[in-house]
Amino acid sequence: MIIHMAEGATIDQVERVINRISQDYGLRCETIVSSTTVIGVKGVASIVDEGRITELPGVDRVIRITEKYKDAARSFHNEDTIIHVGGRVPVGGGNLTFFGGPCAIENEQQAIDSARLAKAAGVDILRAFPDKSRTSPYDYRGLDLTRGLEIATAMKADTGLPIVGELIDLRHLDAFLDAGMDVIQIGARSAQYSPLLEELSKIDRPVVLKHGFGNDMNEWLAAAAYVMSGIDRERRTVSEGNKNVILCYRGIKSFESETRFSADISMIPLVRSKSHLPLIADPSHSSGDKKLVERVTYGFVAAGAHGIEFDIHSNPAEALCDGKQAVTHEAERIIRSARQIHAMLSGIGMETGSSVAVAAK
Amino acid sequence: MIIHMAEGATIDQVERVINRISQDYGLRCETIVSSTTVIGVKGVASIVDEGRITELPGVDRVIRITEKYKDAARSFHNEDTIIHVGGRVPVGGGNLTFFGGPCAIENEQQAIDSARLAKAAGVDILRAFPDKSRTSPYDYRGLDLTRGLEIATAMKADTGLPIVGELIDLRHLDAFLDAGMDVIQIGARSAQYSPLLEELSKIDRPVVLKHGFGNDMNEWLAAAAYVMSGIDRERRTVSEGNKNVILCYRGIKSFESETRFSADISMIPLVRSKSHLPLIADPSHSSGDKKLVERVTYGFVAAGAHGIEFDIHSNPAEALCDGKQAVTHEAERIIRSARQIHAMLSGIGMETGSSVAVAAK
Amino acid sequence: MIIHMAEGATIDQVERVINRISQDYGLRCETIVSSTTVIGVKGVASIVDEGRITELPGVDRVIRITEKYKDAARSFHNEDTIIHVGGRVPVGGGNLTFFGGPCAIENEQQAIDSARLAKAAGVDILRAFPDKSRTSPYDYRGLDLTRGLEIATAMKADTGLPIVGELIDLRHLDAFLDAGMDVIQIGARSAQYSPLLEELSKIDRPVVLKHGFGNDMNEWLAAAAYVMSGIDRERRTVSEGNKNVILCYRGIKSFESETRFSADISMIPLVRSKSHLPLIADPSHSSGDKKLVERVTYGFVAAGAHGIEFDIHSNPAEALCDGKQAVTHEAERIIRSARQIHAMLSGIGMETGSSVAVAAK
Amino acid sequence: MIIHMAEGATIDQVERVINRISQDYGLRCETIVSSTTVIGVKGVASIVDEGRITELPGVDRVIRITEKYKDAARSFHNEDTIIHVGGRVPVGGGNLTFFGGPCAIENEQQAIDSARLAKAAGVDILRAFPDKSRTSPYDYRGLDLTRGLEIATAMKADTGLPIVGELIDLRHLDAFLDAGMDVIQIGARSAQYSPLLEELSKIDRPVVLKHGFGNDMNEWLAAAAYVMSGIDRERRTVSEGNKNVILCYRGIKSFESETRFSADISMIPLVRSKSHLPLIADPSHSSGDKKLVERVTYGFVAAGAHGIEFDIHSNPAEALCDGKQAVTHEAERIIRSARQIHAMLSGIGMETGSSVAVAAK
Repeated sequence: MIIHMAEGATIDQVERVINRISQDYGLRCETIVSSTTVIGVKGVASIVDEGRITELPGVDRVIRITEKYKDAARSFHNEDTIIHVGGRVPVGGGNLTFFGGPCAIENEQQAIDSARLAKAAGVDILRAFPDKSRTSPYDYRGLDLTRGLEIATAMKADTGLPIVGELIDLRHLDAFLDAGMDVIQIGARSAQYSPLLEELSKIDRPVVLKHGFGNDMNEWLAAAAYVMSGIDRERRTVSEGNKNVILCYRGIKSFESETRFSADISMIPLVRSKSHLPLIADPSHSSGDKKLVERVTYGFVAAGAHGIEFDIHSNPAEALCDGKQAVTHEAERIIRSARQIHAMLSGIGMETGSSVAVAAK
Repeated sequence: MIIHMAEGATIDQVERVINRISQDYGLRCETIVSSTTVIGVKGVASIVDEGRITELPGVDRVIRITEKYKDAARSFHNEDTIIHVGGRVPVGGGNLTFFGGPCAIENEQQAIDSARLAKAAGVDILRAFPDKSRTSPYDYRGLDLTRGLEIATAMKADTGLPIVGELIDLRHLDAFLDAGMDVIQIGARSAQYSPLLEELSKIDRPVVLKHGFGNDMNEWLAAAAYVMSGIDRERRTVSEGNKNVILCYRGIKSFESETRFSADISMIPLVRSKSHLPLIADPSHSSGDKKLVERVTYGFVAAGAHGIEFDIHSNPAEALCDGKQAVTHEAERIIRSARQIHAMLSGIGMETGSSVAVAAK
Repeated sequence: MIIHMAEGATIDQVERVINRISQDYGLRCETIVSSTTVIGVKGVASIVDEGRITELPGVDRVIRITEKYKDAARSFHNEDTIIHVGGRVPVGGGNLTFFGGPCAIENEQQAIDSARLAKAAGVDILRAFPDKSRTSPYDYRGLDLTRGLEIATAMKADTGLPIVGELIDLRHLDAFLDAGMDVIQIGARSAQYSPLLEELSKIDRPVVLKHGFGNDMNEWLAAAAYVMSGIDRERRTVSEGNKNVILCYRGIKSFESETRFSADISMIPLVRSKSHLPLIADPSHSSGDKKLVERVTYGFVAAGAHGIEFDIHSNPAEALCDGKQAVTHEAERIIRSARQIHAMLSGIGMETGSSVAVAAK
Repeated sequence: MIIHMAEGATIDQVERVINRISQDYGLRCETIVSSTTVIGVKGVASIVDEGRITELPGVDRVIRITEKYKDAARSFHNEDTIIHVGGRVPVGGGNLTFFGGPCAIENEQQAIDSARLAKAAGVDILRAFPDKSRTSPYDYRGLDLTRGLEIATAMKADTGLPIVGELIDLRHLDAFLDAGMDVIQIGARSAQYSPLLEELSKIDRPVVLKHGFGNDMNEWLAAAAYVMSGIDRERRTVSEGNKNVILCYRGIKSFESETRFSADISMIPLVRSKSHLPLIADPSHSSGDKKLVERVTYGFVAAGAHGIEFDIHSNPAEALCDGKQAVTHEAERIIRSARQIHAMLSGIGMETGSSVAVAAK
């Protein structure tokens, strides 16, 4: 951490900063004095809350060097984390894993048909979402929870694949765990809701963590740190934390209105270099248009994503939610071609595992 | 609602759209056929989920005319809503109401000192936040809940002012109500968390609803509709809904990094014209810098805000949260001058009440 | 300037950085060594091109302290600059100046009618735009230049007011000067076109400089520095530079689509504190809607703008350009009320002159 | 074009709209009347300036169906355009073309060394930029024009490759043409500067058209239409127009600050489906970091880009401009692997030519 004092800051003001760093965080400082004063904090300053320094009189700005998302950072854990979903399907490292299925569970027929289609297409983990978060209260938000979980369980039994479901209401976590959901997904609208993140830190079931469409990379990785750190609101370590976090990139809002979200392709190698966590991407929600999903999938995989999560629906025109972005029979070609790209880039020594991180260092 | 069919759409595809509108929503359609087909839905289409239409084959795009946030819309309720906080302090209409106090409750001394300072400055409703939502798990997130609520109650008793507190964990709602919080605030990170919004729809205590920094106007007003409509996830009306919603504008993220958020001044008269709800604004969180708060406050009030919520701290340099943006003794001048602007604009026939809405129609 | 070296940077890499700073820019450095190395550049580093440092091996990041827009910065010129347009109308300091008139000159009748309406409403400087920059080649882009300038001259003669016109094609500059345009305006689409900025640095006629809707504050002020510095592309000082630059804020693009641009109200006091130049704002182009212009004007003035430029049209429904955002007879009330706000804020010791800058320091 | 009238619009207001459409543009209308009135314009409304309709009393909104960038639209020209640079190197269709070289020409040695490195790596067309547009007047902006063009010519002679150079000052166009620049590039800061676009419409030399970092897709394609249409500011067709436009995507600004720009991967297949023009992408300027360039290149190619333009520098640490984002010897591996991805996707019937457009329809 570097602290730059404003022009005209007094010696007393400089000392007050140094004292706070020393007393509150036990760290030492060194200074360079020119027309202004630069204070360098020695040692690992990742625990310093920069707001506590910025507010002191005479401080111009605080520059953070160490990341604020320690547990999720590659600088604290250099090896790629590989997570085994359902105890068997690996996500991360040199693997390319496909998550797919309907955006929402609407009824048993649609759910089972879509699940079979997804399995035939080659997905590794089924999307089985008993609940949906929607912008408007007047839109479809899913079945009754018990019925939704029953159908999810049926999808799993029918296909033999592990399943991922989005948890919205934190009071439903036990029901999700009891129903055998293999992965708990956190969606965009809950991505910074700390009580939910804290609940997930107390379990060890794998979590897919999307970021909000208004969150930047640091906020997203800080949300991962919430789940991983097991630190509660009083800043006490209350659990081991849940290390099984899979990041899912889905793009952010921008002024471009022709695509649903702006999915910055540079984020794929960047997040791979900043974090050791598995990183998948969602071409359905980022592009918002089934006609774009195929090529966006290839783009994400070629850029180094560890996997893809996308909407597959047996009958998109009758979908109750997001049918516009679901693919159907073409899922098989998409998965097959993406695996070829991944194999080819692995074959020429560019596998999407840890070497990317090194290259990107 | 207007539906534009793609070039080359077949008659069957057009009929399928018309049938869905008719069968699912009981509405009639009329068409204009040129090189392409335009379908106009007759009647109030606010209940139609456009995703269910967009996904149909041959549909190019759906244009919504009626707002998606019905209960919050001025088109459904023309008069300005005035909410009485604590049964006595009016918010909305021709009133200008100040909410102020520390960003977080840190300890009893700081809280009481800040509350007294805020009262002396002229605030109408005290900020007394027992809890804080933070981006990073390693930052200060508030005291133990019971202790926080005790201090909040003491602030209220000491000053005799009603208080507003931010509710983060939905499981704490009863404690907030029991402790006598006069207004429940929903912050940016919870602004689209539907289980929390649904809980608030079941009470009648006033709610201050911020929007997420990644939410646009329609998403914000749709969140208000969640609280107001009393519609549950299965789209059943389960309660009367809570009509006592106060909107709080705080700016959004943009590519400009020199201010904390971009607080679009045009949003003040625009939201006033679109919704009948009281609209306040937060100059502390939008600008992020105490040096900008005074002028930003004047800007919001002159543009027609019904009130201001801002951070006042007795000793910002020792604040545990957001001290950089808290004002201290200058709060008195800010409130006094803002009231003069408001009175002047009222005096020349431009009071910030319903006439703005009419002018903005 | 502070340079932070990456973890693991070698002593040779540190020395190479220090050597470049010393050899290319004649500045000295001092270092703090902890787990990483921090290099502080001593003296005024505003001339250092940070890209030349960032590209060196081992450099993690470069933090600029001194602004990159030296000539426009308040830190280099503390007093508010006041510019006299047409040798008589002051802009900046404690003044509030109104620029108004039609968005484009369409024909003599419309131009003269609109000019008279603007004068009667109380504007100080007329908008008389012989040319228009448009996004699409198929839209209206103005009359023939000679005819446009003739009408502009007639507007000036008829009203006796000085006029401002937007210069698009740099080859037309002499014609603008010869026709007696009192202020040359640079629009959003030309705001970073350096050959045009360089031409303006060679004259002393006042310039209104808008920023592009994709430019942040630093890019905008750097464009002002282009005009003010008289530095040519080979970095030689070739002229005195043109110090008569008036900044015009008009908002930026964001993901909010309900307003035309996002006009961040915090930018008004912020730019006032960062630059000594007069700062006006454009409520017509920022909001894009005549129904919002009145309240947005009050917001800008209350926040400390030195003036307002807005579209006034005698018959907006027949305008060939941007009629949707032009006001007509209500211009008189807007100007009168805005002057009252300005007077009131001056009267209570908060005049929008240099004290704002001090307050904002 | 569809026009929606506001609630309460009068019959007279509806007629005025219909009359303007008929008189100004010779098009007929049909209406649907429900609680509000919808007017459908029959026939090709691409010439209608929607601002001229929006400004009429009673109009709520205008919805454009036909694109505003006619000449660049696939709907007006279905086949992929293939442009032959220097009369021999094809760009577009099923080809994958690499443009590479130094960001700026600094001196003969650096230029020739970089050109040879780029050729050896496999680029098809050399970047040879005699001039540079920069945000700050104090930064390096290139050599004297004559010297710069001399070196560019030497780079071409030495390698035998065609060259592309960025034209900033429109007064230098003849010098560029005379010096044998095979492609004229328009950069981000000139991307909406209409006098320059108009000059390019009068020649037939191929043009690489970047978009501004603040421009959306429609503005970018409208800029292409400026070059292609040959329409001058008085809306007269004054030339055949220049059909040889190559689009270059480079990302936009967003609130994410960890990458230089946000390069939305969905834009690659989207622009391919909307326009028949060749589409290349620039991984150097979009990511801003040489460590990300390799994977971003693979992403763009897999998503369907017709080519890549990137910075290759023989000695990035000594570059005078953008050295941080230039690659060196790794260029060879990048080009080779990208060609493999392209070949593979072609081989499985997904070549990046016209079938993408069909798939994306």
